[in-house]
Amino acid sequence: MESSVVLGEKDYLACCGSVKFAEEMVLAGPFSDYQQTVNAARDIWFNKVDVNGWLEAFAAHPQIGESPSRTHKSPTSAQWSKGEQSTALATATDATLQELNEWNVRYRQKFGFVFLIFASGRSTPEILAEMKRRYQNRPIVEFELAAQEQMKVTEFRLSKLFTVNSAAVSQIQT
Amino acid sequence: MESSVVLGEKDYLACCGSVKFAEEMVLAGPFSDYQQTVNAARDIWFNKVDVNGWLEAFAAHPQIGESPSRTHKSPTSAQWSKGEQSTALATATDATLQELNEWNVRYRQKFGFVFLIFASGRSTPEILAEMKRRYQNRPIVEFELAAQEQMKVTEFRLSKLFTVNSAAVSQIQT
Repeated sequence: MESSVVLGEKDYLACCGSVKFAEEMVLAGPFSDYQQTVNAARDIWFNKVDVNGWLEAFAAHPQIGESPSRTHKSPTSAQWSKGEQSTALATATDATLQELNEWNVRYRQKFGFVFLIFASGRSTPEILAEMKRRYQNRPIVEFELAAQEQMKVTEFRLSKLFTVNSAAVSQIQT
Repeated sequence: MESSVVLGEKDYLACCGSVKFAEEMVLAGPFSDYQQTVNAARDIWFNKVDVNGWLEAFAAHPQIGESPSRTHKSPTSAQWSKGEQSTALATATDATLQELNEWNVRYRQKFGFVFLIFASGRSTPEILAEMKRRYQNRPIVEFELAAQEQMKVTEFRLSKLFTVNSAAVSQIQT
């Protein structure tokens, strides 16, 4: 049996911290399946959310290697960040965490926003190497790359919402 | 006789309203000629100023078709804007100005910053056609295009500063 999952603005904000993104997703929905949701999310993120919205979404992420603060705007997003960074944290030593921290500062000084990477399954040395490589980029190139990483995070989180909510819907229906 | 023109932060800010741009230009100077100045300006604008700096510079421009306010941060920049838009204003009718105004609003709603174009020598119908064409762009594409237009404005203004100051220097030396 097909059942649509109805997601609200708060759900979308937990996936991507741009208010415009969340509002447009609500307007475009409800969606009949995950693929339709992702297609709409991609269109909205890359074609409709402006550069200020991108910066807003980036600002909703904790610095890589750090736990999100307890006062984070979206508790769901904060919890997910922690999960997505679990491999990184498990493979970190004091020395690599220190280096990560230094590069985070350097990166933010150059680009004006937090280093954004889809961290799930990636080790700290891998993330560090990627950060050093990307640090060489021109600001506008890095800005677009960060937006692509944000989209990966968004898709991953949407898939989680779909799994959880579909399970809930089919439980109600049985 | 070769003579270097020494420009200060205020001069650079009148050319491009990003504080980072102006500071970096002062650090990189003084320059021996116009070409060296422009080369430095291009490098700083495209490789060192971050996306927030780009937005800051865009925000220093009046809306096209409008006079800059008297309380503008840089009176020189405000005066130049007026000069650069002189062809546009001379070719404008009430109807085209009205249309320009409507498209300015639409443009800002989509992209989150003012429509930026190197207006010197361009008529209002030409500018309007360009705005409608560029309105179709993805936000990130338009963001980079606007930065390229800003660079054209910066170069034009730097050349003015060079002409004026070179004349002053040679007057002092004769």
